[in-house]
Amino acid sequence: MTTHSARLAALRAELARIGLDGFVVPLTDEHMSEYVGAYAQRLGWLTGFGGSAGTAAVLGDRAAIFTDGRYTLQVREQVSADDWAYVPVPQESVASWLAAHAVAGQRIGYDPWLHTSGWVKDTAAALADRDATLVPVAANPVDAIWTDRPAPSDAPLTVHDDTHAGRSSAAKRAEIADWLAERQADAVVLTALDSIAWALNVRGLDVAHTPVALSYAIVGSDGTTDLFVAPGKVDDAIRQHLGNAVRLHDRHAFAGALAGYAGKRVAADPERAVAAIFDALAQGGAKVLPLRDPVVLAKALKNPAEVDGHRAASVRDGAALTRFLRWVETECPKGGQTELSAAARLLAFREETGCLLDTSFDTISATGAHGASPHYHVTEESNAPILPGQLFLIDSGGQYVDGTTDVTRVMPIGAPTAEMRDRFTRVLKGHIAIATAIFPDGTPGAQIDGFARRPLWEAGLDFAHGTGHGIGSYLSVHEGPQRIAAPNYPGGASLEPLRAGMMLSNEPGYYKAGEYGIRIENLLLTVPATIPGGDPDRAMLAFETLTFAPIERDLIDPDLLTPAERAWLDRYHAAVAATIGPVLDGDDRAWLASKCAPLD
Amino acid sequence: MTTHSARLAALRAELARIGLDGFVVPLTDEHMSEYVGAYAQRLGWLTGFGGSAGTAAVLGDRAAIFTDGRYTLQVREQVSADDWAYVPVPQESVASWLAAHAVAGQRIGYDPWLHTSGWVKDTAAALADRDATLVPVAANPVDAIWTDRPAPSDAPLTVHDDTHAGRSSAAKRAEIADWLAERQADAVVLTALDSIAWALNVRGLDVAHTPVALSYAIVGSDGTTDLFVAPGKVDDAIRQHLGNAVRLHDRHAFAGALAGYAGKRVAADPERAVAAIFDALAQGGAKVLPLRDPVVLAKALKNPAEVDGHRAASVRDGAALTRFLRWVETECPKGGQTELSAAARLLAFREETGCLLDTSFDTISATGAHGASPHYHVTEESNAPILPGQLFLIDSGGQYVDGTTDVTRVMPIGAPTAEMRDRFTRVLKGHIAIATAIFPDGTPGAQIDGFARRPLWEAGLDFAHGTGHGIGSYLSVHEGPQRIAAPNYPGGASLEPLRAGMMLSNEPGYYKAGEYGIRIENLLLTVPATIPGGDPDRAMLAFETLTFAPIERDLIDPDLLTPAERAWLDRYHAAVAATIGPVLDGDDRAWLASKCAPLD
Repeated sequence: MTTHSARLAALRAELARIGLDGFVVPLTDEHMSEYVGAYAQRLGWLTGFGGSAGTAAVLGDRAAIFTDGRYTLQVREQVSADDWAYVPVPQESVASWLAAHAVAGQRIGYDPWLHTSGWVKDTAAALADRDATLVPVAANPVDAIWTDRPAPSDAPLTVHDDTHAGRSSAAKRAEIADWLAERQADAVVLTALDSIAWALNVRGLDVAHTPVALSYAIVGSDGTTDLFVAPGKVDDAIRQHLGNAVRLHDRHAFAGALAGYAGKRVAADPERAVAAIFDALAQGGAKVLPLRDPVVLAKALKNPAEVDGHRAASVRDGAALTRFLRWVETECPKGGQTELSAAARLLAFREETGCLLDTSFDTISATGAHGASPHYHVTEESNAPILPGQLFLIDSGGQYVDGTTDVTRVMPIGAPTAEMRDRFTRVLKGHIAIATAIFPDGTPGAQIDGFARRPLWEAGLDFAHGTGHGIGSYLSVHEGPQRIAAPNYPGGASLEPLRAGMMLSNEPGYYKAGEYGIRIENLLLTVPATIPGGDPDRAMLAFETLTFAPIERDLIDPDLLTPAERAWLDRYHAAVAATIGPVLDGDDRAWLASKCAPLD
Repeated sequence: MTTHSARLAALRAELARIGLDGFVVPLTDEHMSEYVGAYAQRLGWLTGFGGSAGTAAVLGDRAAIFTDGRYTLQVREQVSADDWAYVPVPQESVASWLAAHAVAGQRIGYDPWLHTSGWVKDTAAALADRDATLVPVAANPVDAIWTDRPAPSDAPLTVHDDTHAGRSSAAKRAEIADWLAERQADAVVLTALDSIAWALNVRGLDVAHTPVALSYAIVGSDGTTDLFVAPGKVDDAIRQHLGNAVRLHDRHAFAGALAGYAGKRVAADPERAVAAIFDALAQGGAKVLPLRDPVVLAKALKNPAEVDGHRAASVRDGAALTRFLRWVETECPKGGQTELSAAARLLAFREETGCLLDTSFDTISATGAHGASPHYHVTEESNAPILPGQLFLIDSGGQYVDGTTDVTRVMPIGAPTAEMRDRFTRVLKGHIAIATAIFPDGTPGAQIDGFARRPLWEAGLDFAHGTGHGIGSYLSVHEGPQRIAAPNYPGGASLEPLRAGMMLSNEPGYYKAGEYGIRIENLLLTVPATIPGGDPDRAMLAFETLTFAPIERDLIDPDLLTPAERAWLDRYHAAVAATIGPVLDGDDRAWLASKCAPLD
């Protein structure tokens, strides 16, 4: 029996012991985080799945793993089909699968600290239709069998300077207090780790690639705040930074503190606070207001210090990436390089900036067929040589104190095929269509998503992921609330109105299973647009591209570009040369200039 | 005191009499119809508003009328600002307005036969947050003061032949029975008038422009059906057509019949069945399944007989419209014509086909500034002369036994300005971008909506309505479930996956308040698209344009069109000449040929 088969068997035995007929294992933590600490990697431990999003559902006679289009290929490589059915989301939900396979009278367990109340309600209703019951557990049964489960990180909190944050924590908390006053509310529970980091201008090291600390906060109507965090994480510098208006408590005291709001109006975010929090507030007698965390939108609207910081980080990061792209072009065709050696080389270039604090996610270093998994994660087992005739895709980013970057480029190893150039050019046309979009203030990202896909659709092609996600300022590489994606993209972020100051990625792609992957990703800043002759009552927005690195000209078929698209590319490359060139040494600068010359 | 002020005062007095502090008056009927019979025109009677969508909310000290972007101008012209606040939806909801203005302890009434349960739940929650209460009324207080309210229509039912319907009612009801079996349900309540007409292959005359009859139906798991309709509407031909499997009851027996499903699983559509129906089923002991009416999607996927019927109707209707456009060009510059005389002339051309059963909606005959109200309704009071220098907009359609049409064209009276040509050409570019779109099977209309707007957005302009709606087959001119519109368009239809066989309008526009309106509308059929070299696993769709009438060349600035757009227009005009020309007499045919020549 394989390791993961044995773990599944052990979980079933544990479920039987505690009187459950099934259990649901999401990939999240008590904060509904997208990326989670090692202690919360229950899905990967149980199934072997290494992707960043998914859920497992275990019944006595069958089990399923639910993943989205990004992981269609990867889940089949990593998770045994002997034990697990592969179920695509959002086409099928965990609730509908459970309802289809659970038997009347069964009790299916869930951990109320790892699901939203909405999920609990929907799933319970689906099971009730089959006369089965959804049951909360007091302790997670996976933890009972995961004997060497890592402890949560004990890394210290650090201060995020006002010069980088652009606004003091006191000012941010005063704005939250105003928000509470407008809603006649007494307090708001903040559970999203990046919301707490933003509101208090602190950072942490508890989650790989995301500089946040495991904590909870409750902000009151006077702006004073109760922060629940492990005492060992707090030193005098933090204590002084937070000041008297922030009261410190052990993180373990949080659940109990929720019982202390009897008769108060307390806001909590149904998408971000787990069911256990809503249950505890209600049981304590609080009037719970299900409202979106007020930090979510405030954090998305970058202030000038954050934008300036990002610009500086972009130049630094773009120079490191440019050096790497030149290295790929010159070294990889010689042979001997692999996905891991390339990722290591890029990390070294970023580290040579002297400013890198972390990568902003696991670098996607994917050659040939691996590139067709949009979120491929290279491991020692999967590591492939970079070979002539392949496309090499590199999607990576850095965490710097002044900004978080995220950029994807593709390089051909030797001469690309005509099909590769056709597909790359179509992806580029979609990228340009987003970069040059002008749209009314408040347009949802879903309404412009089609611009990125039309050149692919016209060839009978598409890509199975969103076009763009928000990004934090030395925070999460995926940040809400906005997104450019299909209107039915899970979570509803693509319906969020776009506003000036939001940052988004622009990353259309194309993936040919078994052969190659293409993605061109820059970051964008949403800015007001003044259109001469336009309706004076209609505020318009446009995008400013923030990322600077050459887009490989050998992969472009110029005949497929319109004059306007060629002009955009030439303008972009001129800006890359002007912005990055001065930071580079002579040979790198000359190489960049050749890459950034106007298209023939 | 004006008539409408007196009616508002009378309603307030009636509310006081029955112990209510407020009341909500929607523009709908017991079937959640978009267009309603005269007996249900409570909103128009109370406020003077003549638009097709809106809601009024009345409190003791204030009242508001809620309308969408189509009626921003019209509501200000027709409804007194002395009595009514104008509130835009969806930016603000009735619930939020009531919550903002109701006082603790107040009782706000609603008619449970005119609202969905979802509306009741949301509005009650908003009021509860202010300690006010939403209260159902047993009888509508507007009806108590509307002493000369018309009786519901007593027009007879007619048979819709299988040759036009394409499938027998028995086959359709068998499919509904299969749908019930899949859901282990015993019955489904059909309340949407067009669903009932479609399922039973009958038509009626109870709602202007929409050939439906006031009725309810309950389809059982064996396909047999209880039809609730006024006995006077049913003659022997209908009785024979319906057969023994359809049991006839008086429409007044419907509410009572809902009590007869104790212990049964009964489906009802939360969007289409009113709160009173859900309440009655639940009180009768039924297990209510809130599911979308199964007819909605089946009806949207047109069968070959319906498509062929529509093609025939399109030729007939396009010929009548072409004759009218020639008349506009030749007669209107001479002076003496008005919006009403033009609408009458178009009606005469349609009637000369010998096939017209009704117009499919009130013709929008709008010259000059009136065109800037997208849903302008000409009356004797508003009727304006058609003058040189204006744009004349005509949006109209016919009800024929083989199809329902809907088409908009704009004609300049004399020479248009350069701005008019620029705006018209941008609208045309958006129209072409929709007409030529290729997209994956199941793409929501919201994801392609931006294609229609981009050429306007680039000039700092937009239009405040959806891009396209579904349309019935000798049924409703606006038919769900699909729509091309912004993803946040009310009702969610723009999130419905597009499928082959759906029909949609393609009608981008541009409106300059106080000056002119532009809209170019054709109907589309969604068809499978085979793209050579495309991903074989990815089914693609395209649109086939079904409407044939010239698009005015004098309004087009050819320099703004790409070569591909010019090629589309020339191809379209060649198809118009080839399709409509043979139906026309000599002079009309020659005029059409000149209008359809390739662009210079």
